[in-house]
Amino acid sequence: MNPKVLAIEPSMIRAIAAKKQAGAIDLGIGEPALLPQQRFIDAAARWAAEHGVKYTVNAGDVALRELIAAHYAFPGMGAARNVCITTGSQEAVYVAIKTLLDPAVDELLVVAPAFPAYAKMAQLEGIASRAVHMRADDDFRYDVDAIVDAIDPATRMIAIASPANPTGRVLRDADARRLAAALLARPGAPVWILQDEIYRELTYVDDPGSIADYYPYTIVANSLSKSNALTGMRIGWLIAPGEVSDALVKTHAWVTSTASSFGQRVALEIFREPGALQEHAAWYRAQHGSVTAALEESGLRYVPIDGAFYACVRLPRGGDAMAAALELVERRNVVAIPGGTFGASLEGWLRISWVAPADDVAEGLRRIAAL
Amino acid sequence: MNPKVLAIEPSMIRAIAAKKQAGAIDLGIGEPALLPQQRFIDAAARWAAEHGVKYTVNAGDVALRELIAAHYAFPGMGAARNVCITTGSQEAVYVAIKTLLDPAVDELLVVAPAFPAYAKMAQLEGIASRAVHMRADDDFRYDVDAIVDAIDPATRMIAIASPANPTGRVLRDADARRLAAALLARPGAPVWILQDEIYRELTYVDDPGSIADYYPYTIVANSLSKSNALTGMRIGWLIAPGEVSDALVKTHAWVTSTASSFGQRVALEIFREPGALQEHAAWYRAQHGSVTAALEESGLRYVPIDGAFYACVRLPRGGDAMAAALELVERRNVVAIPGGTFGASLEGWLRISWVAPADDVAEGLRRIAAL
Repeated sequence: MNPKVLAIEPSMIRAIAAKKQAGAIDLGIGEPALLPQQRFIDAAARWAAEHGVKYTVNAGDVALRELIAAHYAFPGMGAARNVCITTGSQEAVYVAIKTLLDPAVDELLVVAPAFPAYAKMAQLEGIASRAVHMRADDDFRYDVDAIVDAIDPATRMIAIASPANPTGRVLRDADARRLAAALLARPGAPVWILQDEIYRELTYVDDPGSIADYYPYTIVANSLSKSNALTGMRIGWLIAPGEVSDALVKTHAWVTSTASSFGQRVALEIFREPGALQEHAAWYRAQHGSVTAALEESGLRYVPIDGAFYACVRLPRGGDAMAAALELVERRNVVAIPGGTFGASLEGWLRISWVAPADDVAEGLRRIAAL
Repeated sequence: MNPKVLAIEPSMIRAIAAKKQAGAIDLGIGEPALLPQQRFIDAAARWAAEHGVKYTVNAGDVALRELIAAHYAFPGMGAARNVCITTGSQEAVYVAIKTLLDPAVDELLVVAPAFPAYAKMAQLEGIASRAVHMRADDDFRYDVDAIVDAIDPATRMIAIASPANPTGRVLRDADARRLAAALLARPGAPVWILQDEIYRELTYVDDPGSIADYYPYTIVANSLSKSNALTGMRIGWLIAPGEVSDALVKTHAWVTSTASSFGQRVALEIFREPGALQEHAAWYRAQHGSVTAALEESGLRYVPIDGAFYACVRLPRGGDAMAAALELVERRNVVAIPGGTFGASLEGWLRISWVAPADDVAEGLRRIAAL
């Protein structure tokens, strides 16, 4: 067998979730509780009745790719050629890491705390990865200087999510500009930015930024999973400069051939209807208000929530977050994820998600505060 | 960039297909022309309206995996744990090759002529691969002795498709037994069989065989793409022994996370209805009769069609099949794929598919015969 596969440890998130009991308050779940917009699924079913469900070209349906490229309109990445449709943002990130990095010489730098997938995928590919930790005493705000200082000669890609899972922090527009300027000022081969925007539609600040707007060596990963409650539809995409995009499509073609054409039709209907990507955002904004109030009331230390649907809370009496998460799931009927899952800088914290009803979230926070 | 990605050459099949002109007879296409069974898509859309389209566990919906395991009932692989649902059989094969083989020491042996994906995926992973060629003078029949003789100490997996793309040959039950017995009699570590059964429902012989029925070190890949005209739904699966299955799921989890849950629901509806996998088979049997008659009438030398929806025909006056395919697509309005795409043993042949109307297939064959 492949020793790189054998070496990968099982997911801690799933191990905790597997212990969930009936009636538990689930603050572990990483997907929307809302139902998707059924009209788009029904439209795709009608389309299938007429056209069947055939292969698209490897990169995905051209009309969909044109709509996506035009919608985001990142400089130099506004054409269908710049978009590759993938099996969710998971395959998008996997293909980007596998294509852009040479395991023999390149390193991936992960801005942490971070979703564990970036480092695990690098490990699976035999690519070195290293974390640059945002600081707890700075509320895990994106620190552009720390990121740039962490680049070393082997660094060829920086993975950064905004809004971030788990911290909920959002890279501000001014920071995106500063990061782009600092990277452009560096001598030598450019460092790629892999910008994960899967929570892009869910922000609660006025000035979110996209590095792709300012830095030409950016690859953007996104999907319909969170914005449109379509986690199970498995439709994501990569947006990248032309020649890079061609290489990404080549890898994608051998890994999965094409993304679901049924799912691509759902996506086409969504991108054709102005506002459809934002339809769920009002619910999240209201929930964000309730959850922030509940966090204040809990007395717990928490990280300000700029975006996404997570909050990081400090264990009230310190100690080991894994033990606390086990105590919560086994004896207090609350699922929460230990912070260490997302990097050493989040040891002693729990990540909660807040897609459950607001009263349940508040009760879950009270139980955490009583630990 | 990853030099293994850069080194992979573009697909010859897609290069020929891209030259197709309006009104051309398309004998290049590798997907059914039939429409899928709409009732299953509509049922999945109704299910989505009630339940949303959420993640399943990484390996796929347990109820679907139970149905699949029970349907095929391969010895030792009859439980949900033995099944992993993938993004089509492409991801199934990719995950199997990536998980089971160690690039440092293992070799993949491909029974050729073969679909190019096996060797290309191995190349992408840095895994050595080698072909064992079935013989044109034996009509590319599966030659068990040749396969076993080709195993060398590094060989850890044999990829074999039955029915085969491109030859349409089917491994007979007696040959599956003989191959299993020969492999079991070998000393040392077992050699894995990766058995691609994507055309399993489309056979025109009485005694097709599955190695998985006789050999415990078999991994089976399959999908709904060909049997149910659902190429674009991207639902495939792997069936494997328990511990191997766990490792396959681990790789799958990091590559794509899960297969489409909408597609999995379509699959569940299909596996719940006895006969639904076989509903299109009658059309293929009738078409097989017409096409075989047209092949006889064409005067071309052809390989007997045991299964799938392809035929291999010898160039009537010899010469280079790539040049012939270009002549056909550019000047005679017929798309056909040069045999060399599938291995050196098919140089001088063309692969045609016969999902087009029978009259079109016959006319295409006349144009090939007139080359």
